[in-house]
Parts: sequence; structure tokens; C-alpha cells
Amino acid sequence: MQVEIWSDVVCPWCYIGKRRFESALTHFEAETGEKVDLVWRSFQLDPTTPKDAKQSVTEMLSEKYRVSAAEAKAMNDNVTTLAAAEGLDYHLDLARASNTFDAHRLIHYAAEHGKQDEMQERIMQAYFTEGRHVGEIDTLVELAVEIGLNADNLRRVLEGDVYSANVRADIQRAAAIGVRGVPFFVFAEKYGVSGAQRMDVFLQALEQTWNEIRVQQPTLISATSADADGCTDDSCAV
Amino acid sequence: MQVEIWSDVVCPWCYIGKRRFESALTHFEAETGEKVDLVWRSFQLDPTTPKDAKQSVTEMLSEKYRVSAAEAKAMNDNVTTLAAAEGLDYHLDLARASNTFDAHRLIHYAAEHGKQDEMQERIMQAYFTEGRHVGEIDTLVELAVEIGLNADNLRRVLEGDVYSANVRADIQRAAAIGVRGVPFFVFAEKYGVSGAQRMDVFLQALEQTWNEIRVQQPTLISATSADADGCTDDSCAV
Repeated sequence: MQVEIWSDVVCPWCYIGKRRFESALTHFEAETGEKVDLVWRSFQLDPTTPKDAKQSVTEMLSEKYRVSAAEAKAMNDNVTTLAAAEGLDYHLDLARASNTFDAHRLIHYAAEHGKQDEMQERIMQAYFTEGRHVGEIDTLVELAVEIGLNADNLRRVLEGDVYSANVRADIQRAAAIGVRGVPFFVFAEKYGVSGAQRMDVFLQALEQTWNEIRVQQPTLISATSADADGCTDDSCAV
Repeated sequence: MQVEIWSDVVCPWCYIGKRRFESALTHFEAETGEKVDLVWRSFQLDPTTPKDAKQSVTEMLSEKYRVSAAEAKAMNDNVTTLAAAEGLDYHLDLARASNTFDAHRLIHYAAEHGKQDEMQERIMQAYFTEGRHVGEIDTLVELAVEIGLNADNLRRVLEGDVYSANVRADIQRAAAIGVRGVPFFVFAEKYGVSGAQRMDVFLQALEQTWNEIRVQQPTLISATSADADGCTDDSCAV
């Protein structure tokens, strides 16, 4: 069963939602023996953030919502407390405003190497906990190498335009299917859950989807299917 | 977009179907920018084959279909010619009757390490081209190491019972959704294609599914979704 998650690597609720979803996933997979196929989808909360942004997130929030530095800090403290409840160590005072387009390209690259979830996790940790600038190519290369990706091609990939089409395709599909905020979870291309819901909401969504799809007969779309070459349990048309 | 393929590693039409599907996939991904999420599902053509089977496939076919060795060879020659048209080098005269349960467990293990497709391919090549006994744990460990999996835990995994539940879950789901022969392709848990169809049939299935799902609004299944914590393009409730 496939689950797609639209998120941005700088979205504080996305990281919290990731942990809550992961708890549900652990329960679900142990219960059913099914390995869920997790796909991270790109979304940009603010595509206008410059690639060479130098602001802290606190400064950025103050400007954006026209609040004082103290008020921005209070907003951060609230989400930090909720993150801690999920075992996450947010240091939003250190966080650096970052354009996330290249980070999403890197996550698509990592997917080709079977490390999409690890890359997503590493970038989020770098941004929320370590105060790293995840809009900078140098930082992204370091993080990728840390999870075991080969550095040789990586800089060339990131300095070029590779995977831009994949990032844009995700963003366009989000718009097409009505995603207005992240995190947004799509189960088996059929059901949606919006936001960092409680663990039991995710578990229920996984179970409901699974109960339906595991017995759902796919519609045969090839007219010639019945005649196609194949093997059955007790005969193989070799 | 997800595509699931039920197949057995000793099914001659499955390997041919894999190549035809891969041609379609290359076209589709280049055309759309979408990276298809490919999942190999377990299926056993003959679960009664002993784990320590010593027969050649020619002997096994002769017994099973009560044909002479010459007739069994003619059956093999036919599929070998069709395989060659897809660039596959079948040597069914060398092929060894194998119980495939452990091979499927290994493919599930490889999936956890982002190498499911490589493992599936390596095992099929070993069986169809190299005359390797893919029912034997020693052979499976060798093949896994060749594609870069760590040998340390592997033997323990294969000698134990790990991933058996996953293999059985795939087989049970195949039965539940009406798969009677392999290869069987399921597109986005919605459409099915049975058999080693021509490349253009697969391409059409990919395109049709994609055209539908990329604009299909998932049904929101959480009553509280609208209130959930999340970030939107121009506000983030931190």
C-alpha cells in the first residue's frame, strides 16, 4: 500500500506529523505484515524565500506576521513544546530562513537511491535541531554524504537543473488534488488526511484504506488481457 | 504513482513482461517527469517444489505436463526466442527447479534497503541465464552481496522466518483481488493488466492511470481534518 506525504522541510507541523504518522505506521505494519510504500512529495511553503537568505527564522516570522521578536519567540515556544512531546528537539532560535527547492530536488535524487525517507529526515533534523542552512548546496551535499549518498555526482546534480521537473510535478499535483496546506497525506491515491493529526487518526486511515484495497479487484484495462502470455499456478504457457 | 507487479522469479513470462514494462516505464517517466514507485509482489507458481529440489527444469516440465524431454525442450525454445527479442538470454536447459519462497523473502528484505528491483532482476538473471539454484540460501546470499547488500545479517534473516508474513500477505492479496496468473500489474491500486503484454499496452495503462490520478481529489477521511495543525502557503500556525 502506498502513502504519499506532501510536506516542506521547513514546516514545523510536517516534522511533528512525520513522527505521529511513523508511530501509526509501526503499529500498522506489525499488525498486518504489509510494508507501506512511503513517498515524500515536494511542497514549498514560501517559494519566494531567496536562495541566499541570511535571516534567522525568528526575524523572518517577525516581518511576515508583523509581530515583535518576543511574540515570534512565543509562537516558536508553542510548537517546540508540541515537538518535544514527539521526541523532537526543536531549536527554532537557531533556524535559518531557507528556500527549499534544492532540498526537494535532493530528496527526489535520494529516492532514486532508496534513501528518500532518510534524506527527508536528515534535512528536517538539520533545519529544526541543528540550525543548518538547508537552502545552501554545500549543506545539502554534506547531509547527503552523511546518509551514505555518493558525493561524486551530487554537487553536479544540485548545481544543475536535474529533478526540478519532479519537484514542480509534485507541487502541481498538490494544487490539482486540492492540497492547501501541509503536511497532507494521501493513502492509496484514494483517501486524504490533512495536517499533523493524532497518531490514532493516521492508524485508522491506514487500516481503513488497507481493508478496502486488499480485497478491491482492479479493473482490467487491457482488452486482450485474457489472451496475454503468462503463467498460472498449474500451467505455464512456455 | 505506484505500480505493483505480482510475479514469480522462475516465471519465464514474468521476466519478459518485466522488460516490456520497463520499456514503457522509460517512455512514461521521460514524458511526464513522474517517478513511478515500483513494488514487486510475491507469487509462487508452485509452492510444492521442495526446497532441496535437485531436478532440472526440463525434467520437472516433462513430469508435470507428461511430455517427452524433446517436447519440453521445444516449449523452452519457444519462450527462449521470445525472451531474446527483449534482450534476455534464457538458458532453460541449465535452469534448476527451485522453491521460490526464500527468494521472495529476500526481495522483501532488499526492499527495506531500497534495492528491491535490483534484487528481483539479479535473481531472475541467475535463474534464467546462469542456471543458479535460487531456492538455496547460499546462492541467495551470494546474489544479495553482489548487489551490495550487507552479508552480516543476511544469512540470519534467510535462515530464520523474517519476511515470511510479507510473502504470505502478497500471495493472499493476489488471491483476494483475483490474480490467477502472473505477471499481474496493478496501477495505482485501481487498474489491472494481466500477462506479459506488449510495451504499448503498458504505456497506455500508465498514461490512463496517470491522467486520472493526477487530478483526482482524495476523499478526506478525518472528521477533524479542517482543524488539524498544519502550514499553508501564507500562514503557519506555529
